[in-house]
Amino acid sequence: MSLFWTRGAPRWVLPMRAAAAVLLALAAVLIVRGVVLAQADPSGAATIEADPTAGVTFVWMLISGALVFFMQAGFALLGAGFIRAKNTVNYLTKNMLDFAAAGLSFWAFGFAFMFGGSDVGAGTSLGNGFIGYSGFFLINEAYDVSTIGFWFFQMVFAATTATIVAGAVAERTRVTAYLAYSFLVTALVYPIYGHWMWGGGWLGGDALESWIGAAAVDFAGSGVVHTIGGMLALAGAATVGARMGKYGPNGEVNKLPGHNMLYVVIGTFILFFGWFGFNAGSTVNGNDLRIAVIMANTFLAGAAGAVTAAYVRLLQTNKISAADTANGALAGLVAVTAPCAFIAPWAAIVVGVVGALVMLWGASFIETKLKIDDPVGASSVHGVAGVWGLLAVGIFADGTYGVSGFIAGNGIQFVAQLIAAVVAVLWALVMGFALFNALKYTMGLRAPPDEEMSGLDMPEHGEEAYPADAAQ
Amino acid sequence: MSLFWTRGAPRWVLPMRAAAAVLLALAAVLIVRGVVLAQADPSGAATIEADPTAGVTFVWMLISGALVFFMQAGFALLGAGFIRAKNTVNYLTKNMLDFAAAGLSFWAFGFAFMFGGSDVGAGTSLGNGFIGYSGFFLINEAYDVSTIGFWFFQMVFAATTATIVAGAVAERTRVTAYLAYSFLVTALVYPIYGHWMWGGGWLGGDALESWIGAAAVDFAGSGVVHTIGGMLALAGAATVGARMGKYGPNGEVNKLPGHNMLYVVIGTFILFFGWFGFNAGSTVNGNDLRIAVIMANTFLAGAAGAVTAAYVRLLQTNKISAADTANGALAGLVAVTAPCAFIAPWAAIVVGVVGALVMLWGASFIETKLKIDDPVGASSVHGVAGVWGLLAVGIFADGTYGVSGFIAGNGIQFVAQLIAAVVAVLWALVMGFALFNALKYTMGLRAPPDEEMSGLDMPEHGEEAYPADAAQ
Amino acid sequence: MSLFWTRGAPRWVLPMRAAAAVLLALAAVLIVRGVVLAQADPSGAATIEADPTAGVTFVWMLISGALVFFMQAGFALLGAGFIRAKNTVNYLTKNMLDFAAAGLSFWAFGFAFMFGGSDVGAGTSLGNGFIGYSGFFLINEAYDVSTIGFWFFQMVFAATTATIVAGAVAERTRVTAYLAYSFLVTALVYPIYGHWMWGGGWLGGDALESWIGAAAVDFAGSGVVHTIGGMLALAGAATVGARMGKYGPNGEVNKLPGHNMLYVVIGTFILFFGWFGFNAGSTVNGNDLRIAVIMANTFLAGAAGAVTAAYVRLLQTNKISAADTANGALAGLVAVTAPCAFIAPWAAIVVGVVGALVMLWGASFIETKLKIDDPVGASSVHGVAGVWGLLAVGIFADGTYGVSGFIAGNGIQFVAQLIAAVVAVLWALVMGFALFNALKYTMGLRAPPDEEMSGLDMPEHGEEAYPADAAQ
Repeated sequence: MSLFWTRGAPRWVLPMRAAAAVLLALAAVLIVRGVVLAQADPSGAATIEADPTAGVTFVWMLISGALVFFMQAGFALLGAGFIRAKNTVNYLTKNMLDFAAAGLSFWAFGFAFMFGGSDVGAGTSLGNGFIGYSGFFLINEAYDVSTIGFWFFQMVFAATTATIVAGAVAERTRVTAYLAYSFLVTALVYPIYGHWMWGGGWLGGDALESWIGAAAVDFAGSGVVHTIGGMLALAGAATVGARMGKYGPNGEVNKLPGHNMLYVVIGTFILFFGWFGFNAGSTVNGNDLRIAVIMANTFLAGAAGAVTAAYVRLLQTNKISAADTANGALAGLVAVTAPCAFIAPWAAIVVGVVGALVMLWGASFIETKLKIDDPVGASSVHGVAGVWGLLAVGIFADGTYGVSGFIAGNGIQFVAQLIAAVVAVLWALVMGFALFNALKYTMGLRAPPDEEMSGLDMPEHGEEAYPADAAQ
Repeated sequence: MSLFWTRGAPRWVLPMRAAAAVLLALAAVLIVRGVVLAQADPSGAATIEADPTAGVTFVWMLISGALVFFMQAGFALLGAGFIRAKNTVNYLTKNMLDFAAAGLSFWAFGFAFMFGGSDVGAGTSLGNGFIGYSGFFLINEAYDVSTIGFWFFQMVFAATTATIVAGAVAERTRVTAYLAYSFLVTALVYPIYGHWMWGGGWLGGDALESWIGAAAVDFAGSGVVHTIGGMLALAGAATVGARMGKYGPNGEVNKLPGHNMLYVVIGTFILFFGWFGFNAGSTVNGNDLRIAVIMANTFLAGAAGAVTAAYVRLLQTNKISAADTANGALAGLVAVTAPCAFIAPWAAIVVGVVGALVMLWGASFIETKLKIDDPVGASSVHGVAGVWGLLAVGIFADGTYGVSGFIAGNGIQFVAQLIAAVVAVLWALVMGFALFNALKYTMGLRAPPDEEMSGLDMPEHGEEAYPADAAQ
Repeated sequence: MSLFWTRGAPRWVLPMRAAAAVLLALAAVLIVRGVVLAQADPSGAATIEADPTAGVTFVWMLISGALVFFMQAGFALLGAGFIRAKNTVNYLTKNMLDFAAAGLSFWAFGFAFMFGGSDVGAGTSLGNGFIGYSGFFLINEAYDVSTIGFWFFQMVFAATTATIVAGAVAERTRVTAYLAYSFLVTALVYPIYGHWMWGGGWLGGDALESWIGAAAVDFAGSGVVHTIGGMLALAGAATVGARMGKYGPNGEVNKLPGHNMLYVVIGTFILFFGWFGFNAGSTVNGNDLRIAVIMANTFLAGAAGAVTAAYVRLLQTNKISAADTANGALAGLVAVTAPCAFIAPWAAIVVGVVGALVMLWGASFIETKLKIDDPVGASSVHGVAGVWGLLAVGIFADGTYGVSGFIAGNGIQFVAQLIAAVVAVLWALVMGFALFNALKYTMGLRAPPDEEMSGLDMPEHGEEAYPADAAQ
């Protein structure tokens, strides 16, 4: 066994591992150099001295970040429930490794690209309107409690974006290709759009404001996280192709049921729970009492989405689909993520209702018109409802928290939101198709047909989710 | 398809949907009017200015509320584990929709009925000793961070009450009837008793104090949430009737085992976890350091309840039942919910031990004497242990936190607690029987026998929990 | 039925129950006496008056403690997934009862033995370098918000230690013996080593410092919790013996697969989530902003451990094991638990990588060389990676938070860490073998062969995890 070569390994292994080694060596040089350089406030003593109420903010930000981390368990359950048992270990392994790879990648590169130039903490001052370039490896001045606390909160968002894709490409994508994708998305694709919106870049900063009179806003990431994640999911599902048997020879759509609806529902509850940290934590300030309104709005939109999807199905079929109810709740949550801080509770309900409706429409459109096979519906739940969430800011923001939309008599915000949405969709689709196709023609994206037939668990992992000889 | 009528829908659909439309129209009028009226402090800037430590309280209240929300996942797992696989989707759908319906109902009506007149925040000043009537839709002056944060915390309690009933009526109740029940309970039944106890009403306010010399206290809801929920569950289970096969022709009791004990245990752990937010969060004040004692007491009562139930079964049968151990923990937690703030740790252990004992007695009494079929034991866990919890305040409150019971030399508190318990039981049983019977004779409560035989999942939802063709 | 004797009960029942009765009587005397004695600050009013920022600390400590409690659900899922279905109820019952027994035991004795003499709060002033002796039953002066809040946070750590052992002895250990073990470990074994390190004892206090020039440090318990727990697990697994069929007649190792990999992965996510409270909560101070660095380090070590274990298996077998990936994440978390506060983020990654490597080595060594059967790998994940974590402090502590190791030019800290590690391993192994052998020759440790063959669930609990007649 060698660190760089395994007997019988495919041809892409050597260059890939060599590249990883170069990155590691670069990291080592920067880190060792960083150890001996100046730091800002690594112990936090100076920070709390300067602001005695900072403890409230740190506690709030860190617990909220932990809640967002916990959403990984929700995605794991939700996706596993929606797929067949024979691919469960494969899906779960991707879940564990994508957040891990995403976190490491965001530590090394992603954070610096996203927040360099934003001065959100010590060591993040270098960057321009397109990309940032300071804060790599959290060393030197970035070894600071404010910077590292903020990194933690942002890192779990990056990991969420990576994970959204796992479900859409499930049951036929190789684990190694998926991990390469995860690393690159959180090192580059996510942080660059994130920089434009949240890192002082052109969309959410001065540039757009000086052009049209309003900067785009996306409070907790209907665009940055969900539209980007959902559109990457769409590109991934399209590039890897539909699962065997999903579409008949004449294009007829077959239902491939998931193997455990309880996992789907519990996963939804966990995601809902984590979403409170996702949205309200995004004040990154525990002394900003608007967090109360954000929590309430988050709940109301999710509840309205669940009821809406259930009711639509009841009207259509006289039955209530638990799967659609769960996705309705999630679509409501996705939609309210951008506007949650800027709107009143009644508007959150409207945002959730519409979020569920566009999600149901989008899921059907993607499955039956585009003929793209997304086993968990991530493209529509995150992508379509995410676009609606960005736009909803321009409609319902009521001016009580610094942003005004149509109902507060301001039309220009909607234009800024529309630009942000169009840019998010295009950026994610272009980068997603480029990335997944690059992987497809180098290391190979799709599992061989016999593995897909038998399930990916044994050939890729040597483990079954539910071994027959352990069942009794 | 019409919004109001589905081909082949039952006769109750049209009037029900018409009523919903009228309510929605009313809501729209009130909301639109509210948009243009005065608000209190929707951004929170004035509130934190007035009290610079308010951030601690908001962080505490909102995170605690999120923990209580997460209990929904616990109820979903617990109940699903205790029932048969063929009704799992039905149960889970009820779980998702009851908290959603409860939240929306509490937003529209419940909160205003419960806390109107209590002045807990801006826009909640109108009400009398019997019912409140301000704060509808969280608009006008109620669009305030203090009011909305408190609403969020209280709303998750209302949703918990609704959910308690789901398990007791599982495996034979129609989903539409159940949802109508959920909406009405959280709009009316729960808030009215809640108003009496917590909203400045006659039980917990001046009225009872002036009559007998002590007001009733229920710190976190052994009475308001658990006795009410448990007695509604009893009324529901009695009205809908026992599951087929539960009782033999000569009244013999058959055991219908649940399908997954792991779900039961994990559900219990999640409920236990959420209970820390439920009880300690009920200070609604992060600067009230008594929260430490409340956390410890909550843990100790739950632990003592688990050990007690396990030990009793070991003595009786030389085996330890995991199901009874789980319900013992929950009974200990239910029992300590009212007294948790007022007693010492050693007393919390006594409260938990007795809670488990009365729960075991109650479960057996309900199943074998009353011949009421409660698949998860909710009537006894919440209802019987809840009554004990209310009474325990009158015994163990030691005067260190404002309330004194027998051990602190004060007998009158016990009388107030006894009144509160009797009122809770009567109110919930009367309203529960009225409500469930009204549903029974209008839209129909019980699934047809063939659906019950085959399981409700396919006929009511078109989905199975564990489809055979996805299992491999 | 009698409280002390059950017809047909084994011979150890009577003396054991008599001992329990004596302890209860003792407790009752002390408690009743305590009720009438002076208290410190049971309401918290004086504490917040003296320090107006104390609310932040209490909120932080208590929420962190709740997160650590939730790790019980993670251990329950992880262990259940790694074993066969026929022993699931047995394993889960142990999980529920060991934290309950541990909590009660730590309330009565453990806390006083561990923190007596440390003056961490009112009523904890008596103790010496070897053992403490004040704070029993949380009565008298210990009825104080600071003491009880700290008790809660420490109690969940004690319960974690107890639970670590459950997996290692699963599938063949009687539930009653296991519970006796749990009680004794958290009453004596854990608190005494804990006193040495955290309670002002000789390892972490002045004694070792005066001898060699440095006291040992263990920030959140790589040693106190994980090395102790892991080595107790090793002693338990060795004493109870391997499961039937694990080793062939010529010593060949057979794989006995677990029954549910999804439980393993979700359990890992829950443990990871709870670990944020475990590590960052251990500041026991919400105004110490170093919590940000601790959160980031915790995440990075876990992520690095997951990626490392996955990559090693990929190199070795061209497959990625989900089970090893999960254990790699946990080993990274265990390893960073001691150094998390003292090191920089890049070092946390190194600690996690090495943690996963030593865990993989240790698991193989224990299984194939020592021939000790640990179904979940707890001995290596907690014991071996825990030792590495203690040592890592002496290497990577960079002096930014009060402790310096090799990289900050200080060699003596490593010696102190080495002593702490050796003492932890010896103490846990000696006490573990003594305890488990004592149980083996009194009440009996191992289930009879026919029960092991059929699974322990029916004979010990009268319940199956997945009853066949509830499956449809």
